[in-house]
Amino acid sequence: MTQLEAARQGKITEAMKQVAKEENRDPEFIRKGIEDGTIVIPCNKNHAGLRPMGVGAGLRTKVNANIGTSTAYPDLQEEMAKLRTAVEAGADSVMDLSTGGDLDKNRGAIIENCPVMVGTVPLYSAMVDAQEKHGAMVSLTADDLFRGIEKHAALGADFLTVHCGVTRQVVETLKQQGRIADIVSRGGSFITGWMFHHGKENPLYEQYDRLLDICLQYDVTLSLGDGLRPGCLSDATDRAQIAELIVLGELVERARKAGVQVMVEGPGHVPLDQVTANVQLQKSLCKGAPFYVLGPLVTDVAPGYDHITSAIGGAVAGMAGADFLCYVTPAEHLGLPTEEDVREGVMACRLAGHAADVAKGLPGAIQWDHQMSEARKALDWGKQKELALDPIKFSRYREGRNSEDTEACTMCGDYCAMQIVERYLGKTGPS
Amino acid sequence: MTQLEAARQGKITEAMKQVAKEENRDPEFIRKGIEDGTIVIPCNKNHAGLRPMGVGAGLRTKVNANIGTSTAYPDLQEEMAKLRTAVEAGADSVMDLSTGGDLDKNRGAIIENCPVMVGTVPLYSAMVDAQEKHGAMVSLTADDLFRGIEKHAALGADFLTVHCGVTRQVVETLKQQGRIADIVSRGGSFITGWMFHHGKENPLYEQYDRLLDICLQYDVTLSLGDGLRPGCLSDATDRAQIAELIVLGELVERARKAGVQVMVEGPGHVPLDQVTANVQLQKSLCKGAPFYVLGPLVTDVAPGYDHITSAIGGAVAGMAGADFLCYVTPAEHLGLPTEEDVREGVMACRLAGHAADVAKGLPGAIQWDHQMSEARKALDWGKQKELALDPIKFSRYREGRNSEDTEACTMCGDYCAMQIVERYLGKTGPS
Repeated sequence: MTQLEAARQGKITEAMKQVAKEENRDPEFIRKGIEDGTIVIPCNKNHAGLRPMGVGAGLRTKVNANIGTSTAYPDLQEEMAKLRTAVEAGADSVMDLSTGGDLDKNRGAIIENCPVMVGTVPLYSAMVDAQEKHGAMVSLTADDLFRGIEKHAALGADFLTVHCGVTRQVVETLKQQGRIADIVSRGGSFITGWMFHHGKENPLYEQYDRLLDICLQYDVTLSLGDGLRPGCLSDATDRAQIAELIVLGELVERARKAGVQVMVEGPGHVPLDQVTANVQLQKSLCKGAPFYVLGPLVTDVAPGYDHITSAIGGAVAGMAGADFLCYVTPAEHLGLPTEEDVREGVMACRLAGHAADVAKGLPGAIQWDHQMSEARKALDWGKQKELALDPIKFSRYREGRNSEDTEACTMCGDYCAMQIVERYLGKTGPS
Repeated sequence: MTQLEAARQGKITEAMKQVAKEENRDPEFIRKGIEDGTIVIPCNKNHAGLRPMGVGAGLRTKVNANIGTSTAYPDLQEEMAKLRTAVEAGADSVMDLSTGGDLDKNRGAIIENCPVMVGTVPLYSAMVDAQEKHGAMVSLTADDLFRGIEKHAALGADFLTVHCGVTRQVVETLKQQGRIADIVSRGGSFITGWMFHHGKENPLYEQYDRLLDICLQYDVTLSLGDGLRPGCLSDATDRAQIAELIVLGELVERARKAGVQVMVEGPGHVPLDQVTANVQLQKSLCKGAPFYVLGPLVTDVAPGYDHITSAIGGAVAGMAGADFLCYVTPAEHLGLPTEEDVREGVMACRLAGHAADVAKGLPGAIQWDHQMSEARKALDWGKQKELALDPIKFSRYREGRNSEDTEACTMCGDYCAMQIVERYLGKTGPS
């Protein structure tokens, strides 16, 4: 039985209880959200040792870190180090996007060693397999693809990104309309290429029920990928993107009907003034399904700083109702991220998520800021470190620039406003 | 004659022409904005070698970098290095906030060597002088203070931050209401302490005309400081902050009447959902005066990452109409920034400003993103570097992780979406 099937029968599962505790919510709140489809708990039956997390309305905004080998960097050990770093830095989810080295082995090792939910993109390994077996990615057959998906599910992937919405009609819309960056999703580009080469419909759309059957069996959550997500600001919120989103809305309903948990992926590169509209559109077209966004990146001009451009978009998207943020690292658009990039990416994304949680009034969210501010007012540096998003970076700055016994900090020294106010004004507020 | 007086007489000055060229606007657009008070050009007659910049409605969002010595780090040479770094990184303005070492010498050196506008806070040096001369900051007299202000103006400061709105009534509002972080502005805290100690009104408010006379003489732009800006999310948009803003609105009108260019400073720590309201409120209460914000920081919990929390707030504030963003570095709340922090701070702030410019539809802003995206689509790495916000960081990432002849990047390698699409789909769009 999937979490959704259980919720429909009024049952509160162990995973729901754990999520309720983690979120400081009533278990019934979680069950109801799952029944309505506004909350998912990606938790594959075969992922041993998973700490289940909820994603959706009324819950803390979650953060995903992408890791995985590439052809130029096929070394598993580097990716395992990134996995540890991401989890230590506070990622709620990790996606394995490996395309280099022994993919089955990588995926198995990552799932086995990952205490948080793991997402994968079965299409990637299917592409790589086809390339290796037949010398061409497009020689992939639909059966190969579904066998690949089944393999990922059986191995314990908690959610699968599948590009079901890239239909022939949607691609036709793209072709007619035109774009600067065309398709930047690897899955989306491959599916499109496959369809053109074979003159056939997207098998993930045509045989969607086959996908649902696999998900049902392991309680895998579907993450409906946006294969036509905009790859630059000028392409954002165009007919192709929205045509695909309409198809995804239809597929959300079919997944729910089948008892399969489902969320929807979103852009991408989006001008800041269109971010809120994008979230509202997804929530409306996809009937409140959890929204998992990549960024959004609010400018294209800042390679090396895309963790920041995406923190801006992610915070605003989260405030508007996005539930799950995929981090972007400073290495985005330039190369495979290092461990340090992964760390920076997770931190930037977590702070965006928290800013969103405060902004949307998530119960208890501002408490954290409140406590930090009290520690600041008291010039209690130990407490500030304890409360900091990243205590390691806190120490590196604090200890590097201040002698141990300084009460104020070297920025203001004797002219610390906190100290001046204390001296002359005392504590404000009704006595 | 100040720029404002000239504009009123229908004159287009050399500075207006330069700003018009820089902004790709008609000179008359600039003149009209100055006349209306929605644009200022801070350009002290005594700042030789200044490249004048406009700040205000319809212009590119500007970025300021704070530098300056502190008691623990009084070395001028370090600050001169930060000045060069800030200007090279693209700062449109630099504020000298020195409180350590020989303040007059520091200020003179910074103004002399700074090609962009320089702002200062005369109260800081007045506090330090009083401390050194009388052994107590509060022994400062009003005459000392105005003499100090005159000195900054004569030396060539293009704009002065003065905390004129911290009146006894406003502080009474604060006392009655209470706050977690009370006052975090150094100037605001000092003025408050001074008023309590002497039992007198704020001389910057009481003798505001004296201040206007000084500004008129050198065409110094007034930057009305928000001495009671919130220092944590929980204190944001409270009665004390808004009471001060109302006073600032009154002072904007008096400055304009006198022919003095004026802008208004704003918060600070503000939850993301209150950022837009804060900008709208300032624009309304201060009759469209340019708004110069510090951050806003949208969470208190991320010391070490405050360049990111403020980029989020700054981008949203800019989209809502804020005209001038003061950077915040990763060292904020922890210590005096290093040169590297200054660089990171300027870059984060510039990208926030640009995201805002795109979002508010500033003519030509999205063109930059458009060009970058075309270079990406063409996998033209040389052009991408040239267009990058920070070509130095671009190279560090790109060259560190990719062999020189790679067409794609190591993130996707053989599975580059751009390349797959090219192969199967060709160029989209109407033929």
